[in-house]
Order: sequence, then C-alpha cells, then structure tokens
Amino acid sequence: MKKLNVGMIGAGFMGKAHSLSYAGMPMFFWPAPAIPHRKMIADVTEAAAKDAAARFGYDEYTSDWRRVVENPDIDIIDIATPNDSHAEIAIAAAKAGKHIISEKPLARNAAEAKLMLDAVKEAGVKHMVAFNYRRTPTVALAKKYIEEGAIGRILNFRGTYLQDWSADPNSPLSWRFQKSVAGSGTLGDIGTHVIDFARYLVGEITEVMATAQTWIKERPVQAGGADKLGTVKASQDVPKKPVDVDDEFITLVNFENGAIGSVEATRNAWGRNNFLTFEIHGEKGSIYFNYERRDELQVCFADDPADRRGFRTIYTGPAHPYGEGLWPIPALGIGYGETKIIEVYDFFKAIVEDTDIAPNFYDGYQIALISDAILKSAEKNAWVKIEK
Amino acid sequence: MKKLNVGMIGAGFMGKAHSLSYAGMPMFFWPAPAIPHRKMIADVTEAAAKDAAARFGYDEYTSDWRRVVENPDIDIIDIATPNDSHAEIAIAAAKAGKHIISEKPLARNAAEAKLMLDAVKEAGVKHMVAFNYRRTPTVALAKKYIEEGAIGRILNFRGTYLQDWSADPNSPLSWRFQKSVAGSGTLGDIGTHVIDFARYLVGEITEVMATAQTWIKERPVQAGGADKLGTVKASQDVPKKPVDVDDEFITLVNFENGAIGSVEATRNAWGRNNFLTFEIHGEKGSIYFNYERRDELQVCFADDPADRRGFRTIYTGPAHPYGEGLWPIPALGIGYGETKIIEVYDFFKAIVEDTDIAPNFYDGYQIALISDAILKSAEKNAWVKIEK
Amino acid sequence: MKKLNVGMIGAGFMGKAHSLSYAGMPMFFWPAPAIPHRKMIADVTEAAAKDAAARFGYDEYTSDWRRVVENPDIDIIDIATPNDSHAEIAIAAAKAGKHIISEKPLARNAAEAKLMLDAVKEAGVKHMVAFNYRRTPTVALAKKYIEEGAIGRILNFRGTYLQDWSADPNSPLSWRFQKSVAGSGTLGDIGTHVIDFARYLVGEITEVMATAQTWIKERPVQAGGADKLGTVKASQDVPKKPVDVDDEFITLVNFENGAIGSVEATRNAWGRNNFLTFEIHGEKGSIYFNYERRDELQVCFADDPADRRGFRTIYTGPAHPYGEGLWPIPALGIGYGETKIIEVYDFFKAIVEDTDIAPNFYDGYQIALISDAILKSAEKNAWVKIEK
Amino acid sequence: MKKLNVGMIGAGFMGKAHSLSYAGMPMFFWPAPAIPHRKMIADVTEAAAKDAAARFGYDEYTSDWRRVVENPDIDIIDIATPNDSHAEIAIAAAKAGKHIISEKPLARNAAEAKLMLDAVKEAGVKHMVAFNYRRTPTVALAKKYIEEGAIGRILNFRGTYLQDWSADPNSPLSWRFQKSVAGSGTLGDIGTHVIDFARYLVGEITEVMATAQTWIKERPVQAGGADKLGTVKASQDVPKKPVDVDDEFITLVNFENGAIGSVEATRNAWGRNNFLTFEIHGEKGSIYFNYERRDELQVCFADDPADRRGFRTIYTGPAHPYGEGLWPIPALGIGYGETKIIEVYDFFKAIVEDTDIAPNFYDGYQIALISDAILKSAEKNAWVKIEK
Repeated sequence: MKKLNVGMIGAGFMGKAHSLSYAGMPMFFWPAPAIPHRKMIADVTEAAAKDAAARFGYDEYTSDWRRVVENPDIDIIDIATPNDSHAEIAIAAAKAGKHIISEKPLARNAAEAKLMLDAVKEAGVKHMVAFNYRRTPTVALAKKYIEEGAIGRILNFRGTYLQDWSADPNSPLSWRFQKSVAGSGTLGDIGTHVIDFARYLVGEITEVMATAQTWIKERPVQAGGADKLGTVKASQDVPKKPVDVDDEFITLVNFENGAIGSVEATRNAWGRNNFLTFEIHGEKGSIYFNYERRDELQVCFADDPADRRGFRTIYTGPAHPYGEGLWPIPALGIGYGETKIIEVYDFFKAIVEDTDIAPNFYDGYQIALISDAILKSAEKNAWVKIEK
Repeated sequence: MKKLNVGMIGAGFMGKAHSLSYAGMPMFFWPAPAIPHRKMIADVTEAAAKDAAARFGYDEYTSDWRRVVENPDIDIIDIATPNDSHAEIAIAAAKAGKHIISEKPLARNAAEAKLMLDAVKEAGVKHMVAFNYRRTPTVALAKKYIEEGAIGRILNFRGTYLQDWSADPNSPLSWRFQKSVAGSGTLGDIGTHVIDFARYLVGEITEVMATAQTWIKERPVQAGGADKLGTVKASQDVPKKPVDVDDEFITLVNFENGAIGSVEATRNAWGRNNFLTFEIHGEKGSIYFNYERRDELQVCFADDPADRRGFRTIYTGPAHPYGEGLWPIPALGIGYGETKIIEVYDFFKAIVEDTDIAPNFYDGYQIALISDAILKSAEKNAWVKIEK
Repeated sequence: MKKLNVGMIGAGFMGKAHSLSYAGMPMFFWPAPAIPHRKMIADVTEAAAKDAAARFGYDEYTSDWRRVVENPDIDIIDIATPNDSHAEIAIAAAKAGKHIISEKPLARNAAEAKLMLDAVKEAGVKHMVAFNYRRTPTVALAKKYIEEGAIGRILNFRGTYLQDWSADPNSPLSWRFQKSVAGSGTLGDIGTHVIDFARYLVGEITEVMATAQTWIKERPVQAGGADKLGTVKASQDVPKKPVDVDDEFITLVNFENGAIGSVEATRNAWGRNNFLTFEIHGEKGSIYFNYERRDELQVCFADDPADRRGFRTIYTGPAHPYGEGLWPIPALGIGYGETKIIEVYDFFKAIVEDTDIAPNFYDGYQIALISDAILKSAEKNAWVKIEK
Repeated sequence: MKKLNVGMIGAGFMGKAHSLSYAGMPMFFWPAPAIPHRKMIADVTEAAAKDAAARFGYDEYTSDWRRVVENPDIDIIDIATPNDSHAEIAIAAAKAGKHIISEKPLARNAAEAKLMLDAVKEAGVKHMVAFNYRRTPTVALAKKYIEEGAIGRILNFRGTYLQDWSADPNSPLSWRFQKSVAGSGTLGDIGTHVIDFARYLVGEITEVMATAQTWIKERPVQAGGADKLGTVKASQDVPKKPVDVDDEFITLVNFENGAIGSVEATRNAWGRNNFLTFEIHGEKGSIYFNYERRDELQVCFADDPADRRGFRTIYTGPAHPYGEGLWPIPALGIGYGETKIIEVYDFFKAIVEDTDIAPNFYDGYQIALISDAILKSAEKNAWVKIEK
C-alpha cells in the first residue's frame, strides 16, 4: 500500500491533533487511500522539535521549517502554526510541489490568502484548509439532508460560535489577540468556522452587515510563546498590553440564493465552551446543530403528520456519513480527533484519486474576503458586498 | 375586600386567557389587592357575546364595545381585540376614566401608540400593555439576578422568537397577515415580545439595523373572522390574496449602555413552536432562557470555581419571584395562564396602591418606535436611530 | 346550560388547584358538559373557611365538612384533605348520593380504599381519584400512540418520581411524614402517580419486589397545621419527632401482559423538583416523558428509516389530545392548572353523559393494593403478588 | 524514553480502539510514562492478521495468539477477543510474565475469572480490565466530587445502559447472543459497565435482586465470524437459531455502606444508542451522567442558596481530571478514543511506577461474582448475597 510522507510544521494543539489523525486514519478507514507516514516535524527550537518528534512519532525533526519544505521525501506539508506564517510556508511548499493542508483561517486577510491560492494553482498541488468541523458526521448528515431536499429551499441560517476561555481579563495576551499575528480576533479564530458552515450548507454569501467589539481592551503579556488558550491565568502584577482585535462580532448575511441569516461569535460568553451551532429553516423542515452535543443532529420534517411532527434527535453512526469507518454504534463517541481523522481521510483520498477537495484554498480565500468585509462593515456601519 | 369591575373587549384566545386570569388571580395571590369581577364582555355579534359571557363568566354582554366603555360600573377596560381597534378603544376608555390593559402590540405603529399614550396621560388612569412573557417567573428571576449584579455589566443580548404555525402556505390569511389590521407581521405579533425582554433586561435600545422577508407572498382567504392561529389549514381551492407584512426579520440592536445584540423572529421555523429565547452575556456571567422550557432558567456565574462552573438549571418555585403565590414546589408547572395571572396581580396592585406599572403605554409606544425603525431600516438597508 | 354545584372540602394547595379548575374549565372546553358552580367550601376553622370562600370564590363556607355533604344543593363533593379523612368523607358523601372526586392516594391503605369503593358502588354515584398527571396532554398522547400500536408490544416500563423538597433534615414533620395520617410516605404521596402511569399505559401489575428506606429518621415538629411542602425550614431549636414512613422506595414490577419494569420514588433527590418520568420500550418504538418538561413527549418509531431515526420531541398542541380546548399553538404552556382543568372536564362529562371515568375508586383501590404490596415486599424482602 | 512492546490479540472493534490508544497516548500525556510500541498482532487467519498489522501499525503478525504470548520481546498482552478466550490467553500470558490488559467482561463467569486472578497474582504482573467508561473525564470528575464530600453520604445509585442495535429481530446471532462464547448477554456486554460505575463511585455491592428477559428468542445465523454489532441486518430467509442469553435485566442492589439502588440494561430500547447513565443522590447533592452527552456532568450542590440552586452542567476541560493532557478547552470533544487513551496512560503509569491500577482482575472477578448473582437471583426470584 502506498505511503505518503507528512512534514508537520508546528507542534502545538494543532500539531497534536493532526498527528493523531495521521496515526489513526487507516485504523478507521480501511483500506486507506494511502498510509500517512509521519516523516518530519518542525518546531521553534531544536529541543522543542526533538521533543515533538518523540511525542508525536516523527522520524526526523528540525527547528527550521524550510528544511521540511525542501525535503524531497516529503509529500505533504501540514501547516499548524500561527496565522502570520501560513502564507510564507504555503507559498514555499507549493513551489516545492508539495500538497498542502493548512490550519484555518487560511491567512490574516484576503490579500495574503490570494497569494496562497495563486501559488497552489500555479503549482498544481492539492490544497485544503482545516475547517474540520464541517466533517463532524452530524454536519455531514445535515449536508446530506439538504442535498436530498429533505428540508426544501433554505430560508434562513443562524450560526453562532460562543466560547469563554478568554472572558477573564487575566487570560493572557497570546498571539490570538494580536492583529499583526492573527489578522483578526474572534472572527478569524472561530467565526470563520461558522462562515464555512454557512457556505457549505446554504451557499455563497454576497453581502454582510456587521458590528464588532473589543470588550477587554488590554491583557497581561503572556509568559512564553506557547498559546495555552486561556487555561493559565496571569498573575495580577504582570504588565498589560492592548488588544487590537475583535472579541465579538455579529453580522447579518445575505446569500446568493435568497436566504438570509446571521452569524455571531464571541469569546466572552461565560458558560459556553465550544458552542458552535447552526439552525437552518427551510420550506420543508429545519435543522439544528450544536457542536457541544456533536453526536446529535436535530431535524424536523414538515411532511411528518401533524400529531407526530417534532425535532428528531439523530445520533450518527454506521447508517450516516463516514459512519462505516468510525465506531460500530452511534454515541460511542465522536471527539475532536475523529473530525480530524475524517479530514485526513478525505484529503488523502483526493490526493490519491486526484480529485477536488473542499474546503480548499479557494474556499479559504473566499472566507477571507467575507471576513475582511465583516470588519469593513463594522467599521463603516454599512452593508458591504463580497468581491467575486 | 375591594372589587374592581372588568369590562372585557374581545372573546378570542386573549379574551379567554385574560378571563382565566381574573378568576384565578385571588386564588394565587392572597390577600389579593382587589377582587376582579367579570362584569361585562363585548364580542362581534350579540350571539357571540352572549355565548362568551356564559363561557367566561361575565354578568353582562354586548356586541357594541362602546357600551362597555360607557358603563359607569366598569373600572377596568381590557382590550383583547385585533391591533387596528386598540387605539380607538383605548382612547375612548381613557376619556371615560377607565384603567386600561391592552393586548400587544399597543398599536399598529408609533403614531397610533402616541395618541394612546397621550390619552391615558391626560386621563390619569393606569395603563398596561400585556407583554405577559416578562412575567414568566424565570424571566423575573433573570431580572433579579441582573439587578443584583450577579452577571455584571451586560455585553450582549441575543433574542429569538421562532414559531411554525404559519410555515405552511395553506395556513389562512388571518388578520395577522394584513397590514391594515395588524400594522406589521411577525414583528408586531411576536418580535415585540423580544424587544420587551431586551428593554426590560438590558436597557433602552438606541438604534437598529434590520433585514426582513415575506417568505409566503399569498395565502388562502380565511373562512370566518376568528383567528385560528394556523390550526386549521385551508383546502386547496380557496382563493388566495397577498400577504403585505413580514414573515421574518433579523435586526442588530445597540443599547444605550453600550451592549450590542440581535433579535430574530419568524413564523416559518418548522419544529419551533413558541421558541422565545434570550441569551445574555455579562462580564460576570451568562443567562439563557427558552420559553418552551419556561420552568427553567439557565445561569452561569463566572465567580464559581473553575472546576465547578457551568450553567445551572434553576427551576423557579417558592424561593423565586412570585413563587410564594404560585405552586408550592418548583416544576409543578408554569403554564400560559400563570403568566397572565401574575400580570393581573401586578396591574391590580398598581391600581389599588396607585403606583407605576410596567410595561405601560410608554413602553408600548417606545416598542412601537423601535418596530417602526426596524421596518424602516430593512427598507433602507441602513442603521436607523430610535427617536427619544 | 346545566350547572353542577361543587362542595369543596379542604382549602390548601389542592383546594386552590381544584377551585381554579372549576373556574377555568368552561373557558377551555366549550360548550362545557355543565358549568361548575363553586357552592360551598369547608376548612378547619370558621375564619379559615370564610377566608377560603372569598379567595376561591364559593358562595358559602363552613368549618364542618358534614354540612357540605348534607347540603342538598350540592352535586359534587371534592375531597382535598389529608389522607386520613378521605374514607370518612367519601363514605358519607356516597351515602348522601353525591358524585365524588377525591385527592390521591384514595386512602391510607387498601382496606380503607375498599370501604370507599364499596360505598360508591352501592350509591351508584360517579367517583374519580385525582391522579391528574395522566391528563397532561403529553401523557394522553403517549396513551394514544400505544393504543394505535405505534410502539408495538410493550416490553418495559421505567418510572421515577424524584423530588427534593424534604431532602433537608430541617424540613418539618408535616402530616406527610406521619403514618397515622398519610398511610405511607413517598409511596402514597408521589409513588402512586407513577403506579397510575404504569397501569394506564402498560396494564395491570401482578407482583412487586421492593426495597424502601427512611433516610431522615426524625424531623422538627411543624408549627401550625398547614402543610408547606418544605418551603419553610424549621429553626434549629425546634424539637424533633420520629418519621415513621418511607422517604424512598424502589420496586421491580411485573405486568399481566408480560412486560417488566421498575418504579422509584424519593423526596431526597437534590436538584430534582417534580421529576416524574417514564420510559417505555416496545417492540416498535420507545416513549420518554418527563413532567419537568411536560410540554414535550419524546418518541422513537422503529419504522423510521435508519438514517432518519431518533427520538422526536413533540410539543403538544391543537393536533393532540385535549389540544383543541387548550391553547392555540403548542408550547404556549401547559401548567399544573391545565392538568386539573382537563380532569374536571372529563369528570363533568362522565357525570352528564353517565359514562365511566378513570381513574376511579376501583383504580384507587387497585393502586392501594399495589402500594400495600410494595411495603410488604420491602419488609419481607420477597416478591409479593397483588390480590385480584 | 522507555518503550513497552505491546502484543495485541484480536483485531476487531476493540483491536482498533486499543491500537489507536497506543498510538495516541504519548501525544496527549507527555512526557509519557513509556512509549507504547505496537509490536505484534494476532487475528484468526494469516491474511486477516497481515491486514491488521498494516492497518493498525504493528511490526509483526500471526494467526496463532500463542506466538504473541511466547514472544520474549513483548511486555504487554492486550486481550481484545470474544469472552470465551480471555481466560486461556490471560493465564498463558501471566505464566509468560506479561502485563495484561483484558477487554471486559473479564470472563464468562466468576469461576473462570478466579482462575485468571489467581494466575496474575501468582505471576506478579500488572493486570487491568478495560472498563474504559470510568475513565471518561466527566465520570472521573464525579468520583472527585464524591471523594471531596461534595454530595455527602450517598443514599442512592441508579444506573442504566440502554442500546437498540439488536432490537431488530433480524439483527444476526453474533457471539454476543451465545452463552457458550459470551457467558451472558446484555449483562456481561454492557451491564457490567454499570456495575463497574456502581462499585467505583459508591462502593462494594453486597446483594442483588434481579429479573431478566430474553425478548427475542431466536435470531438469524450470522454470515462470517466478525461481529458487526447489528449494523448489518440479515435477509429474511436466513435460518434462525435460539438465543440463550439475556436481552434485558433489572436488578435492585444493596451497597455495603447502606446505599441502595438499581441497575437496568437492555439492547431493546429503540432510540437509545449508548445510553449509559447514572444518577446518584447524596445527603448534600446529586450527580447525573449520560454517556451520550459525555462531555457534560450534571451536579447539584445542596449548599447553594435556595434561589441559585439547580443542576450545573459542567463541561470537562483542563480544570478537570485528565484535562491537562487532553484538549485545551472544554467541549472540543471527548470521543471513545480518548477514554481508551486515558486507560492506556494509567496502565502504563502503573507498570512503570509499579503501583496498583483499577479496575484490575480483582475488580473483574468481583463484577463476575455480582453478574453470576444477578442471573441466579433472576432464576430464583430472590435476593442473592455476593460472595466475599
């Protein structure tokens, strides 16, 4: 069976999640399109990289990501670094003829994303953006229902992504709060997942009308580089620096097909952890999803008789998308790892079968255009059309 | 014990709900501020009014609402008619020196509401608008938490009111779909309840940015005058007429105190019945309410230790607002009737003790201003400020 | 329209609930079978009875319940007193030829219940036991599904009734903790509601195997006679007396039709308020009900296609049992009052149409036999058959 | 860093789950106690074993499990075969001085389990039974609360495990329905997980009183050996053979510390997928867990003020047991894989640090004694004491 060698750049939360998915993919989807081989990993220092190689099971390591990109044995570059390095790495990897999977958002802004998209198109490599949540089996099931026409023409999309890990003002100023590194705040970090859902399930977004806020204007400087996502609070006497990105945004959205909707994301919602939801109303039914209860999809079919109509709580399993490869009965448990394992499966399949894959850099670019429009709309207090 | 004589105008769904509340109020809140006496009821025909008097327990009946207003024995006029007659009745009742409780929305638009407000102010009578949902004990508990500072400064309000009773295109064209009678569609009918929540719990709204849609452009003409709220579907061959009000709207809202938010209402959400919800994020906690599960309030306190923090599901009972008058343990069951019984209790108390009551015609007028602004904003695709 | 005069005995929590139902029934179910007229009420003292008459809307009052029973104008005797007086009152009422509705449990034990059953049979009057929860529209819907065969042959019934109002050891020793007054503890007070569900939905119970516990062995003596259901805690220095009834029981149950099951009830379940639930598994589907969310019934149909199968959350409304009489859309809210209003409606209908009504004194007697068997089983640690 | 070589016996559902956990453990828990190395795997045929080695990442393969046990390079034997081979393999592995982790139930009955326990004790090796669900972080959190005294003395335990994968009579007769292979039916397969919870969270069980049923008396013979857990239905014309194990059981349980409770398990509960739940009532609070929503623990603390008391929904994350090793925020998603990864982590830690681990073969034996007692009780219709 064919092997594909992976070069991983970044050994934080995402390096871990992706490494697990390379190890686990063939165990779930067998025969696998190809066996992922964890060849080389890069992290910021030689010591950190060495440690990461032992931990995540890579043959080689380096503190210089260019050595990964230049390594002729590598088939795939996996970009799991902060947002400000995505473009440089991806463009170099494309030039080196590697297939690329990049963490989201694709870039800090649309201009950067466009350069990346041009590079992969020119190189003719496969490219993917790791909006993994659309590969939650329940979300894939929602897509299937919509494609089957089970809920009819879509009227409305309401998406939210609510978290609270940085609701505490003592949660430190990691790169996620710095525009120069992250591009935007909540919007790029989590809002883009909702936008990915909207485009995946409903269709292209044509214009937005947004409002945005930075609720916590400054935060304590973070000790050390590693992003702890708010699990470590700073002590009181650490000096503070300004936050220059959004903590929260709400946007109205118009879709090309006539549907309307709204998207809200915030990291200041006490009690919400990973509250990534959507509710879709169609002419023939409705769908509700909440990632915090990701094994379940709620769906209502208008065609049910009036005395038996109501939202059905459907736990995904072997009868549903990806189900045969996963666990043998529903509710054994889909975790974060499974969403990433499915992502790798689809990416490898696209590489081996030479087919299109989504979401790719085009989608990443389109989402960046929408994100830029959201920020512009919030600034101008007006509807902003999305460029084609 | 003092009695107050009630004159009820309208004998539909709301006439029923209010009549129950007059009968039940002293049973729950004892000693009652005064005993409501069901004196006289008006309905569209003599026969209907006679029937209503027997059914709802009134001493007298009439097909001419003016006879109720002019009846010197009547202390309180209760307006439970479609929206287009609220103003005329209320102004006449005020002139006759009656205290007035009117169903919501107060009027078809702000101009009409203003005339009503002027009339009651001039007459010096008590006036109330029946936004009963804020008297759900769980909503009153949310208010109490907010006033105690339990969730800190409010950042965000997210309200929805989703129903599906008219999602079927064969649901007939009752007065609720006719601008000349209703003033607006989903907005006035249910959206105003969410706006009432927003003002009650967060504060005054200063501007809105909305979008609105009429999804079902025409509906079968309704047989008979009585509004069945979609429980009877028209047969296929009934002629159709245009709908000239909104089926759905979404609006961004800005509050005077700096909070932001959104409100959405639709009657095209299959599977949602009376899905009136709000979620409020504050600096120290969050609150979530869903009327479909109205015995429960969800609240998260940031001050809880990290390993014991999470939304608490609080069932209201004797320890909570209005609880001592209601049922002796939580979850015995708050129904629609109880919200109306509490409303009558507070209204009677205000009359007897000569104190202010909310929501009153000023609130109804302010909500009408906001509603008008929402429609204007949706038309102009721009933020619209609310007049003071 | 015919009137039926009601004589109410008892003016506590149940006197209140029943009085509301007499006032409200015709408002909901119209034309009503007959109009309930609140004629006379009895309470323990003349002053209390006078107060109750004013509060609950009765023409006359007395401190001697025999005067109600002997009043020739009275058609119906409503027994809303503690358990130890049910038999004496009911037997006297039957002899006086009155129709009787009695609060549950019917009596302190089966022997007492048998005397009551014999008396009403001999008198030929209508008789009902107020197990109101089976008249929750969602429970009636469960019954309808079962009768339609929608879930096939029933295999299993699991019922619970969990509360916490007396979980605090300082919750006072009301009559509900005294065997001489109550007959049993949690069993008679709330467990019998679950047994009523089991018999109503599944069928006759043939034998039981139980365990029971008194967790809190003594409680502070209660000041005053009125049962506050734990809303008032005693101060620390109040003397304590022994509790001689069960706080909790669990029983296995066998049904005549081959189904098996379990029933558990406790008043020591912190966080559970009125957690009256059942789950029924049939060969073709399952049903789940939780009174704390009483507007919803959960039902799963095995015949649904595998990729669309799951529990449906059905909110009852006009399309469901009793729905046309209640509120015009689902989830407007079924409270405790509505269950009692439906109860009165069915009782009046049976009287006027001279038909059978359930649950009646036969059912109350059968439940008393099962209750006695549960206590005996817990004592003997062995299965106990129910007498026929 | 130390490596421990794993020999895996069995390549079905459990072989897959365990293999993932060996690959993933160091990625989550770092520094790992030791690095698991997937050395050798056995399956029923040479071809199947070869395929499994490629799929699950083992260096070597064999169709003879004895070659794994005898391999001197192997440190750990992982038994993931049907129940009838656990004893033979484990005893051989113990004699060969290997540490052993066995799938549950430990054996077909207590006698067999006793032989296994004796063998591992004699050999002085580490031994574990894979009751993985107690390692769900929310269950570990429940344990922590109980140990902290947060819910006080435990009064009651109520556990269920409800599934529906074999509710269809055409679900084939896999080994799980054959007493000679499985020992018992639902009891051993899933009921033992609940018994493990009961012993882990509450304490030792001293006696049981059970009822059991085989609802579907015969099933179609299964084509091929692999257990599909009901995902493949047999066609109508496949011959049927008798089922000789339980489909459902309910048992009362008494605990050494005075608590009481009940356990129910069935595979005939349409709509329930992996509905593994417990509810525990203590003198100071309550805990509820449902594996279908395994990221959440429900807990109520009696000490909360009456107007803020209610079940808290706590999503586990970095602030909770195992949380620092898992994902950086709550609700990113705990799946089945994570429970197994934690299991391997604790097992490896016990081996490297030479400490006790639970649940071990002693626990497995004790659970087998309880299981045997449940079957005996159901047969004799009497309470059965558990041997010490």
